[in-house]
Parts: sequence; structure tokens; C-alpha cells
Amino acid sequence: MTQKVDTLFTNAIVLTMDGKLNQYDPGAVAIKGDMIVAVGAQEKIVQEYSADEVIDCDGKVLMPGLVNAHTHVPMTLLRGLADDLRLDVWLMGYMLPVEREFVSPEFVRLGTLLACAEQIRSGVTTFNDMYFFEDDIAQATADAGMRAVCGQSVMKYPAPDAPSFEVSLAMARAFIKKWKGHPLIVPAVAPHAPYSTTPEILRSCAELAKEFDVPLHIHISETAFEVENMRNEQGMPVVPYVKKQGLFEAKVIAAHCVHIDIGEMRTLKHANAGISHNPSSNLKLASGFAPVQKMLDVGLNVGIGTDGPASNNDLDMFEEVRLASFVAKASSNDPTVVPAATALLMATRMGAQALHMGDITGSLEVGKRADLILVDTSSVHSSPRFHRDPHNAYAQLVFSSKSTDVTDVMVNGKWLMRDHNLLTLNEKELLIQARELAQKIDAFLITREQSVLSKLIALGGSMEQESFEVQIKVKVANPDALIESMTRPEIEINAYKHYHQYDEYYMFEDLSQGRLRFREDNLINTKGESESVRSRLTLLGQKREGEIQDVLLSRSRFLAPAVHTSRFYREYFKPAKEISVEKDRLRWHIQYREIDFFINLDHVKQPEMGSFLEIKSRTWSRKDADHKAQLVNELLDLLGVGSAEIVTQDYIEILAA
Amino acid sequence: MTQKVDTLFTNAIVLTMDGKLNQYDPGAVAIKGDMIVAVGAQEKIVQEYSADEVIDCDGKVLMPGLVNAHTHVPMTLLRGLADDLRLDVWLMGYMLPVEREFVSPEFVRLGTLLACAEQIRSGVTTFNDMYFFEDDIAQATADAGMRAVCGQSVMKYPAPDAPSFEVSLAMARAFIKKWKGHPLIVPAVAPHAPYSTTPEILRSCAELAKEFDVPLHIHISETAFEVENMRNEQGMPVVPYVKKQGLFEAKVIAAHCVHIDIGEMRTLKHANAGISHNPSSNLKLASGFAPVQKMLDVGLNVGIGTDGPASNNDLDMFEEVRLASFVAKASSNDPTVVPAATALLMATRMGAQALHMGDITGSLEVGKRADLILVDTSSVHSSPRFHRDPHNAYAQLVFSSKSTDVTDVMVNGKWLMRDHNLLTLNEKELLIQARELAQKIDAFLITREQSVLSKLIALGGSMEQESFEVQIKVKVANPDALIESMTRPEIEINAYKHYHQYDEYYMFEDLSQGRLRFREDNLINTKGESESVRSRLTLLGQKREGEIQDVLLSRSRFLAPAVHTSRFYREYFKPAKEISVEKDRLRWHIQYREIDFFINLDHVKQPEMGSFLEIKSRTWSRKDADHKAQLVNELLDLLGVGSAEIVTQDYIEILAA
Repeated sequence: MTQKVDTLFTNAIVLTMDGKLNQYDPGAVAIKGDMIVAVGAQEKIVQEYSADEVIDCDGKVLMPGLVNAHTHVPMTLLRGLADDLRLDVWLMGYMLPVEREFVSPEFVRLGTLLACAEQIRSGVTTFNDMYFFEDDIAQATADAGMRAVCGQSVMKYPAPDAPSFEVSLAMARAFIKKWKGHPLIVPAVAPHAPYSTTPEILRSCAELAKEFDVPLHIHISETAFEVENMRNEQGMPVVPYVKKQGLFEAKVIAAHCVHIDIGEMRTLKHANAGISHNPSSNLKLASGFAPVQKMLDVGLNVGIGTDGPASNNDLDMFEEVRLASFVAKASSNDPTVVPAATALLMATRMGAQALHMGDITGSLEVGKRADLILVDTSSVHSSPRFHRDPHNAYAQLVFSSKSTDVTDVMVNGKWLMRDHNLLTLNEKELLIQARELAQKIDAFLITREQSVLSKLIALGGSMEQESFEVQIKVKVANPDALIESMTRPEIEINAYKHYHQYDEYYMFEDLSQGRLRFREDNLINTKGESESVRSRLTLLGQKREGEIQDVLLSRSRFLAPAVHTSRFYREYFKPAKEISVEKDRLRWHIQYREIDFFINLDHVKQPEMGSFLEIKSRTWSRKDADHKAQLVNELLDLLGVGSAEIVTQDYIEILAA
Repeated sequence: MTQKVDTLFTNAIVLTMDGKLNQYDPGAVAIKGDMIVAVGAQEKIVQEYSADEVIDCDGKVLMPGLVNAHTHVPMTLLRGLADDLRLDVWLMGYMLPVEREFVSPEFVRLGTLLACAEQIRSGVTTFNDMYFFEDDIAQATADAGMRAVCGQSVMKYPAPDAPSFEVSLAMARAFIKKWKGHPLIVPAVAPHAPYSTTPEILRSCAELAKEFDVPLHIHISETAFEVENMRNEQGMPVVPYVKKQGLFEAKVIAAHCVHIDIGEMRTLKHANAGISHNPSSNLKLASGFAPVQKMLDVGLNVGIGTDGPASNNDLDMFEEVRLASFVAKASSNDPTVVPAATALLMATRMGAQALHMGDITGSLEVGKRADLILVDTSSVHSSPRFHRDPHNAYAQLVFSSKSTDVTDVMVNGKWLMRDHNLLTLNEKELLIQARELAQKIDAFLITREQSVLSKLIALGGSMEQESFEVQIKVKVANPDALIESMTRPEIEINAYKHYHQYDEYYMFEDLSQGRLRFREDNLINTKGESESVRSRLTLLGQKREGEIQDVLLSRSRFLAPAVHTSRFYREYFKPAKEISVEKDRLRWHIQYREIDFFINLDHVKQPEMGSFLEIKSRTWSRKDADHKAQLVNELLDLLGVGSAEIVTQDYIEILAA
């Protein structure tokens, strides 16, 4: 008498991915409710079990569904939006501005459903997410029928779903309470990263995770820059720092871990932290090569993740598994490391263990949930197939199979895809909605990118300064004599400063865009040392309002503190041309006939252009400007350069000519 | 009045990949015969042209077919046969033995047709091949309707299609004569690599290529090992060496170029050599990271290739293009290098230029051959699509699209695939034939791998030595006294040698397999210096034939000169256990009572085990053995160790116990 089950898979190449990496060919698997009740050689299983639904797998591979160990599913809607950029330009120039504008419960729901469609199609049954409005993500995931760890983000900055981290933490608590115990969703808290949180946030998140026994999902040591900053600021690398905040009292899932040392690996192992290795993202953003083989040697559970589709640009775990093997080989100069079986294990059982769900999913074993996929390995790109060695089956899947070879997907005993047809999602409708949203995002960015000015404003922090200036510049043959004449009694000195200035001018093909100046100002003290440095970005208008008595009337438009490097701005604004100028500037703030003037004595050193005197004063009307222009000419005479050659161009115009 | 053409593509996103990277959306392309006669905005083209066959592309991407710049198509039949191995083990342990056994005209025809099926499916229209029986490959390619550079291999070793390089060269000449001028096939000569050829071969190949004005296809600087050897042997890196042989008088296509310096890049540029960068293969075999951005900076035409499917393991150019971008970013620590448009250019127009076919194919331009593909970018993994920037279209194709998104393929104006259906190939029949062949290869390797002995024989060069030996070993307390007593008149010394020996023993789970010993023998001269080194591999039988008067009768089975490193053998034989022994051996060849004996006085240093005396003599019968055993015991007395402790085990057995 056979035992009755719900579904019986027969005639399959069964890759269990269990502790012994058992394979059965032909093999069979029996499912009852949401559980796997039998796995083994077909001959044996069909004698013991019967079912109404018998699936003849026709020689396909039957294996556990893949585990995507780190992603941000709603970012599916931002894929292909901005690529081939450095992390900061990509994040601060594109992702954050667009997220500030568009991320909402509706956005994350649509992005999650789209991501579920793609992941189901490519054989993913479980994923580990971190984003905003995670309650809506969890609901959409459950609706799609997928299994996921859903981590509500907490950061020290205002987020799209919360004005402060206190609100985020309260949201995370309510979210965890609501979803704890759900058959598909494991709620989690996700302090974004050590650099984007505070010790208080990390401690609170760890306590929350501990209180509810849920995972804590965090980015760790993704870039060398992050580690360098942590060392500079805290005197230690990232893992000891988060340990100090009590993070490892929780069940941690650490994404990336590209730049960690052997001691940090041991700390992570001791804490039973799971790792997500994200090869595509690490390559595309040039974050580096994660020490995968070393982490495996230490005994860490290393899963594989796609990261968000905005930095990948897809959710294709077949591609990630192959890359996990390829990149480990190349970066360690040893083609024998991370062989196919290991890579596939990382994406199945070990990935589930990394998510602290090893008891539930990740392998075809009796008592685990029925999370499984069928993969057609008979197509031309997978042919022929060798049988000599059990390793051949893994090599075929890892090195030749494509995500599009996945034909059927079951999660928790429920079908999500049969013969390439999605059963829980309306893919057509999702594609239409995604297209409509993309058009809005395109329009938003097109508006923003229409001018250098709007791109500057989009970065935040810039200040309009619509000043008109009276200005004259003359060539100075004898700077020392001029400095001497600054002591004349008619001139009242309010302030005197010595600067060393490095200017980078970015010029654009459309001259009406103006020129952008990145200036690094070094204040030099009386000992000749640099006392302080500040960087400013100024958008200079191209047009001049007119000239009066050799005195120019110009308008400087937008000022912003330059919080990023000149490299950032260069990559963000993509100028057609750049010119650098280095000069020494003596700057006096004086009064002459009760009118404020700024006098700059510049020695342009790089390129060597000699010395120049600039006299400037703010103005507000044509009449006022006429008066001040008169005073400027008097000042020139006073300073002994009344007959000097007048220079009508900026240094940059002389150089650009 | 419109001009009549054969085929008119409308309603497409046309990516021309021309010199200005023109895009038309919606765009149209007109084809007449084998040529592109118009490319442009749809509005304009449909006004000027009409056709019986009007293809509404339904918003798909219409672009030039991809150029696979380096492959070995018949090796499709060896994909997944042996993976996660080091290059030498993979090549000499698996590929070469299987090729020696199986490669034939029928083999290469089947492999080529299978590879064409896979390449057409993934949007490749042109490939550059190097293999054996290239005439059959060219015929199969022409039958499939694909465009290819087909390079007949020439090597200094016997090849599957020729017993000597002279024969290969004659074959290459006949092959080039036969195919020169064919509309699809460009015949070429392919000296395999500098290390597998001679200066004479390189010169002859260059002259042949020059005579017929055909390309010369060669592997250059694939591994650091290759470059190191070349520097050691020739005092220069690889590119100057091949230049010295006159190679650059021909139109060279250099595959790999992983380890070349800036001077070599300039030499290649000066010679107008084309490069094939093969990212998957370089990663999988851990060959290294090719300096792609630097090669592009120098102005080289860098194409992208899959290499053979046995080291990839597929012919998926979409994967290669993505990797070309990813790997360049990560290895140069700069995510802005090799952006999507550049990567796609490398796989199209620049790839065609690298194959010296830039005038014929690689872009959608008037006058070029109609080699084009349609790619569906509306599927879930490519959604949404942004339009803000022309770069968005390349990013979508390179970072999100899959080879399976290719729906239609045309080569030379002829359809090869419509809506995923292959029109020139019987895919089902090819899959059946490939499966049958794979079973034969499996059987061949299973037979070979059934024992350590058969694996040893498969490497070639091994020699059976079925000798029986009388042998005794005793512990020696006072080695100096023993050396003294070797001068006794009863002992006639024929020879005396001093060796320092490093032994590595490989042991297997199945003890009946025997033990494999890798021995490095250093001959020490009278000054105590190592005079010469030789390495030998010996398969030692596990069983002993019996013991007579404490004298063992053993059998040593197979000897082979160890031409590879111990690392090679370790990875090839995959022992369950390894033990190393280092010892000093004084070895006398003596005559005693007119019988030859070998006397070894060993000092086992690592691990420290003390000194041992071994006396050995070959034997051929039980009676002879009895007699010699008697003499051995006499010798022990003569040497003053008659009462010493007899050791019945090998050092290795003592250690393994």
C-alpha cells in the first residue's frame, strides 16, 4: 500500500544539495502540503508513494530553488537608469534624487511584483530584501507567493518612508510584530550600513532583532573607502566597530564583506553571521573582489546575492552563481577554487543557512518546505551532457545553463510557474505600469538634466547668489610696489587674507550653460602654512551685462559648498573641457570713500601668467555701478597702476582662447 | 516612386553601431540581396523604399549581429567534460587525450553545426575559429549560413589531422586556396601559439597568410607562465618574439593578450593586429585580467570572444559583452571604464575590424552585408526601459538583456532564425548525435579513470616495469661504521652515488589502486652541490608477493618521467592522502659473489626517522629469490648489521600507520 501525497515528481535528475550532495538519476520527490516528504531514487519512491498530481519531469533537473541572499527588489524600477558611474555619482547623483521623488508604497509594491516575476522566472524561491516601506514589500512578496526575509531600513538620514531614524525604528517594530510567524515572510530590521547609521541606531536595531528573534540585515565593508574611513574615524575596521555596538547579539546577515580581513572573518564566524556575496554588483561598481574562498575556509555560510537591479542590472541568480565561481578563480589565481558544486551550494543550502533559514529551505530534504525548481538541461547551449562524474551535473548548471532554462517553480508546496507561465502574477499589467513609471522618471531626469544649473540644484545644498559686480582687472608689473601702496591713508583696510587657490573650470559645449568652477581655497597663515581648506562650487554665467569705463558688470549665479571631490563633479557634470588654474591670492577687504571694495592681488602660478590686480564691488543698479566704476578708476591711480594694461577677460577665458 | 528592395525592417529601435553610434527610434533598414541599402529614421526610409517582405519589428532592437572574435567551435562537444581544473591538468589530462581519441572530420562537423545553432540563437553572425580539419568546419559553417574566419591549426606536435607541421602547412595552403573568395568563409592559417610552434612554423604561416592576403590567427600571452617562459628562453616577451619571426607582415588576429605590456600593445597597434579579449575563459582558467582599457587607449581594435565552449562553457556573447565591461571596471578599480556602448562596440564593429572584416560587417551601414539581429527588450528582466540618454539603450542590452532575447537572425541577407526557429539547422538531430558522442566519450574516460594506472597511462610516456625484487631493510644505528665496512674486499663496488631525494606519496581510498610516488632526485657531487635533478613518477603496487627469510619480494609497476610538477599530478590524480618524505641516500651498485646488488644507506631527514640500510636485487623466480635472500643475509653480517632490527615496512607505511 502506497502513501498518498499531493505531488509526486518523477523521471528527474534530482540534485538534493543536501549534506552529502546526493544525486538521484532518475530520481523522485514527494510533496505533501508545504513539505517535502520523500526524496530518492525513483524506483524506491514510486513504490512507496502515490499522488493525484504526478509530474513527469522528462529528464529535467529537479533541485532546490535558488536563494538570492541580498537585494533591494523595488530598485528593479531603476534598472538601466544610470550606469557606468562611480558609486557616489550613481548614488548621490541619480539614485537618491530619484528615490526622494518617487519612492512610495505604490512604487515599492510595483517594483516588488516586477522583481518577483523576474526572480520566479529565473528559479529564485527565496530572497533577502532591504528597502523602504518594507511592509508593502512583504505584502507584495506574499501575494506573489515567494519566500523572503524582508528588512525594514533604518538610517541616520531622512528616508522616503520616515523623517527620522526614531520613526524608522518604530516602523520596524510594528512591521516585525505584524509579520512574525508568517509562512512565507521573515520580517527583519535593516540598519543600512555602519557609515549611514550611528552607534545608537546599530544598538537599537540589534536589540529589536534580539527581542523578536529575527535577522538583522546590513551592508558591511562594501568598498575600500568605507573601511579606510572607519579606520580613520574609529581606529578599527568595520566588523570590530559593529561588534562594539552589540550587533552580533542578533542573527546578522552581512551583505558584501568585500574588504574584511581574516580576523573579521573569524569574528563573523563566531557570531554565526551569514554573508551575502554579490559578484555582479561588486564588479559593476568596481567595489573589489570579495575573499570568498577565505570566508568559506573559515567556515562562514556564504550565500550569493544579486544586490539591487539598479547596480547589476538584473536578478539573474544563474549569472551570479557562475560569476561567484569565475571571480573567485581569477582573483585568487587558482582555477580550482569555488568549483561548480560549491557555487551552487552557496546559492541553495548555504545561502539559506546564511539567511538563518537553513532548517526550512535550501535543499531537497525530508521535512523542509517544498521550494523547488525544474531546469531543462537539454537545450543546445547545455549540450552535450556528460555523466562520468557527479561534478558534471553541477558544471552543466553553473557554467552552461541559463535562467531561462527554468521551466517550473514551486514555493511552500504551491506552484508559482508551470512551463514558463507565471501563475500568481499578471506580468503584462506589471510591464505596462513599469513603463508608465519609467516615463515619469525619464521626464523628471530630463528636466533636471536640461541644464548644468538644474543638475547642480538636484544635488542639494546650492544657493542662488544673483549679484551684480563692478569689476576691473589690470596686469601688474611690480606687485611689491602695489602691496606697499595699500598702506596709503585713503585706503581703510577692514581685513586681509592670504589664499592659495586651486580652480578647476568645467566648460560645456552649449556655452549658454555657463561655466562651473570647483575652487579649493587654502587659507595661508602668517607662517606661510595652510591653515584651513574649503571647497566651493560656483556656476558662473557666461553672459556679461555690459562694460562701463573698462569696468565689467558681471553676474555670478549659483554657489554651493563642494561636499564631494572634484572627480565626483567631473563625472557627474561630464564637461566637454576642463581647465585648471593655480594662483596665490592676497585679498583685502577695504573701504574707499565709504564704499566697500575687495582687492585681489593674484599671482597666477600654474600656468605662469604673471600678477594681476582685481578690484570688485557689489552693485544693484546701473547708476550705482557708474559711480563705483568711477571710484575703481581712482583706486587704480592710487595704487600706481592707473596706466596699466586692462585685462577684460577672466584667466579662464585667456586660457580657453 | 519608392525604390524596391528585398526586405524592409520597420518599427525598430535601430542601433547602427556606426562611427557616430547613430540610433533611430523608430528606425528602418532596407536590404537588397546580401547588402544593406538604407538605414535611418523610419519616416524617411519608408518614403524612399518598398519591399515584398516588410518586417514590423514591433519595437524590438535591430542591430548588427555579434562578432565572436575567438573560439574553437568543435569543442562544443567537450563542454562540461572537465571543469574547475588548472590549465595544464585540463588540457593535458583531459582535452588532449580525448581529442587524440575522438577528433575527426565527422566530429568537427557535428561540433560546428551544434556551435552554429547555439551562436545563431544568441545573436552571433560572425565568428573566428581555430581548430583541426578546418575544411570540414568551413563547410559546416557555410551550410549553417554563418560568416566565419576559419583558421587551420599548425603546431609543432602531431595533431589530430596531421602527423607533422609540414602536413598541416600543406593542408592550410590547400584549404586557403579552396575557400578564398567565398561569400561567407574567410580562410586563415592558425599557428596555435608561440609556445606550441617553432620560429620556422611562425615564419611559414606568416608567409602563407601574406601570399594569399588572409588573416593569421594565434594565441598570444594567455598566461603569465607563458610570458615567463618566453622571457627565460628568448630574453623577451611574446610580442617581440613573434615580431622577430615576421608574424606582423600578415594580418594578425591575436587571441587573449592577457599579459602584454604597453610596448607590446604599441607593436600590435603598429602592425594593425586585431585582438580578441575572452573574459569568461580568462576568469574560468584564472589566466588573469586583460588590460582592455589600456589596449583601447592605444587604439587597438579589441574584439570579444567566447573561446572554446570547453573553457567557458558556452558561446553566449551577451554574457561575454557584459563581462568585458564588468571585469574591466573591477580590475582597473574604476566603474566608468568600458561603459556599455564600448563593450557592445567591441562585440560588433570593432570586433569585425579586429578580424580584418570591418568593411564587410559589424555595423548597420549602407554597403555592408546584411548581418543583423532582432532583440526583444520588452521582457520582464529588461523592464523598465529608460530613454533619457542614448546610453540607456546600450546599458539595457549589455547589462540586462540575455542571449535568449534574440528572436531573429539574418546573415548575408539570408534568414537563419525567425521568431526563435532555426531555419538552416536540424537542431533535434544535432542534439541526438551530440548525446550519442558524449556517451562514447564518457565511456572512454570512465575506462581510463577506473584506476590510477589507466590515468597514468593516459598521460603518455609511462613504461611498465614488472620487476620482482629481493629486498631487505634494517635500522642502522651507526651509519659511519657501515660506510667504513663497504670497503671490505668481498664487496666489489661498481658505482657510487649520493642523492638528495624528495618523495611525495599519493594514496587513494581504494588501496588496491596502489600508491603513486613523485620523486625528485638531486644528484649531489663531491662538493656537496646538487649537480642534476630528475623527477620520476612511480606507481607502486600495494600487494607484496610474500616474504622469505625476512627478505621481501615486491613488485614495482609503472614508471614515467615526471614532465609536470607535483602540483599537476596532485590535481590530476586527486589523492585521498599525501605524505612527503625527504632523505639523503648513498647508493652503491655492488657485486657480491658475482650477483648484482643495490645498497642504499638512507638518512630520512623529514620527518626525522634515523638511518636505514636497504639491500635490493632483481629476481625472476622463487628459487632465484631464495638464493639471493641468503646472500642478502650474508651481506648484512658483512656490513656489521646482521643483528639489526629488520624493518618490514616502507617509510611511507610507517608514516601512514
